[in-house]
Amino acid sequence: MKNLVIGLAALALSPAACAEEAPASAPSPNEIVAAAPPSDWVQIPAEDLLVMDLAPDAEGNQRRVVIQLIPAPFSQGWVHNIKLLAKSGWYDNISVNRVQDNYVVQWGDPNYDNPEATGETKPLPEGLRVLEETEYVTPPYHDGTGRVLRVHGAKDTYADWARISSKGWPIAGTEQGSSWPVHCYGMVGVGRNYSPDTGSGAELYTVIGHAPRQLDRNIALVGRIIEGMEHLSSLPRGKGELGFYADFEKDRRTPIRQVRIASDLHEIPQPAFEYLSTESESFAKYAEARANRRDAFFIHPAGGADICNIPVPVRRIPGE
Amino acid sequence: MKNLVIGLAALALSPAACAEEAPASAPSPNEIVAAAPPSDWVQIPAEDLLVMDLAPDAEGNQRRVVIQLIPAPFSQGWVHNIKLLAKSGWYDNISVNRVQDNYVVQWGDPNYDNPEATGETKPLPEGLRVLEETEYVTPPYHDGTGRVLRVHGAKDTYADWARISSKGWPIAGTEQGSSWPVHCYGMVGVGRNYSPDTGSGAELYTVIGHAPRQLDRNIALVGRIIEGMEHLSSLPRGKGELGFYADFEKDRRTPIRQVRIASDLHEIPQPAFEYLSTESESFAKYAEARANRRDAFFIHPAGGADICNIPVPVRRIPGE
Repeated sequence: MKNLVIGLAALALSPAACAEEAPASAPSPNEIVAAAPPSDWVQIPAEDLLVMDLAPDAEGNQRRVVIQLIPAPFSQGWVHNIKLLAKSGWYDNISVNRVQDNYVVQWGDPNYDNPEATGETKPLPEGLRVLEETEYVTPPYHDGTGRVLRVHGAKDTYADWARISSKGWPIAGTEQGSSWPVHCYGMVGVGRNYSPDTGSGAELYTVIGHAPRQLDRNIALVGRIIEGMEHLSSLPRGKGELGFYADFEKDRRTPIRQVRIASDLHEIPQPAFEYLSTESESFAKYAEARANRRDAFFIHPAGGADICNIPVPVRRIPGE
Repeated sequence: MKNLVIGLAALALSPAACAEEAPASAPSPNEIVAAAPPSDWVQIPAEDLLVMDLAPDAEGNQRRVVIQLIPAPFSQGWVHNIKLLAKSGWYDNISVNRVQDNYVVQWGDPNYDNPEATGETKPLPEGLRVLEETEYVTPPYHDGTGRVLRVHGAKDTYADWARISSKGWPIAGTEQGSSWPVHCYGMVGVGRNYSPDTGSGAELYTVIGHAPRQLDRNIALVGRIIEGMEHLSSLPRGKGELGFYADFEKDRRTPIRQVRIASDLHEIPQPAFEYLSTESESFAKYAEARANRRDAFFIHPAGGADICNIPVPVRRIPGE
């Protein structure tokens, strides 16, 4: 049991952790992140944080989910709508209506887009934009600074390239065509009806399994979950069509009490988060270590990592 | 609400399903599987099914998990051990001790390989093999029949190639070197200590998130969950190190009542399963449709699918 703490740190993200002494080895991705200087972290604007409070669980524990909304140039029309829906209180008292294993958790109006619907839909507020399918992608994205983006892994099955952008998001694209955000675990998208419908932003989902990249360019991605993912991913799976909760199990729908933009919350301290700058040397080391694990548990470094296997580190900024 | 059933079938695996009429379109992957003739299905030997019964849930519902053990040439030493452990009853009354979001669920002796251990480990039975790390991979695998394997998607981030084998398993390899099974969602592996330990098979885990391909060639993969995955993936996440249940929440450990090989069960009917032959025309169409969705919901076919995004269809054979 000696050196328990060292052993655990070296084994972060390895199955079958043990409490024995770790062999001498290179730092793990988590150790690299923990050693990054404060200057390598970038605070996320409070206007880009969507704070969703679920009803407490059966034991009375609070369940807060925090979503980071995606910055320009992606999906800004839908992000506009989502902020409007949050400010108007429209999301309050909706519910989680669908949990499909290895796919998505979906929340919204339980009577919209739901094969198990039994009532009338909730009227949407005025002022929502109607978006075009062309907005699922952007023109070739050369980063906010015009700098060449870092490339992590030369091969992507779904695009000519896949990169972590300088603003910290997984994106993919074609050589000379277009760019788009990528459906990784925890990314948040906009439910929609059949084309040409593009969704308003009232119906949202997050990925709870292997990256369903077939959805890229087919749905608007608007953000990612940065805290409280476990409150959604561990919900009981629905037994109805497509993982919707069936009529006989409607009481499994988790109520959503309130959804607000963090800057509108009257809380002290306000929720605050920061991400590891993807332009930093620390991030470069972290990504390399994700692609080639040389910490104690590993024998064969993989030689690469797919875009969804390099999650951008995000952490809470402690309050006063 | 008209054409509800047609709309749902066409939308299988699409978020934001709706109850409106689906536009005319190509069949979905699920529709192709449903239309496959009986001759395209291959029964899984009962000797390769590991049946794990968890304690009933809080509402008294039974929770059965069925694991298909991997056939030769992969990991046969560990599969030997697992069958011996099941036949000896060693797995009975162990528990699920670790649930780490977007990573793994792990079960075994709660006092083995556990930073939260407080008691003595459970003695293992006689006759277990000690395996070598060289057995994580095989020599170049040219299929049981010597035929060239079908290739689904030309690019893989982690290997020279990745294919679904003729026996229905995701494998990857190098051009002239070695072959190995792939860590996809639902695959089952053997927990181990630091190298050169390779694990006995007493400690098992399954993947509940994006494919952690960095574990390929570093751990033995011994099977996949083919029924009851939701009983593991929806368990509450552990708050201890690495997602182990911490000391204050030890009552969250799910008890495992019994684990047996299906052929040893005294049940009528015995559990029986079949998979869609990966050599069949139906599977070729299914894989193509997974890589290029042209059913009603989709606008842009992806143009490819990674190895873990083409899960081999498996279904229960109804009993008498």
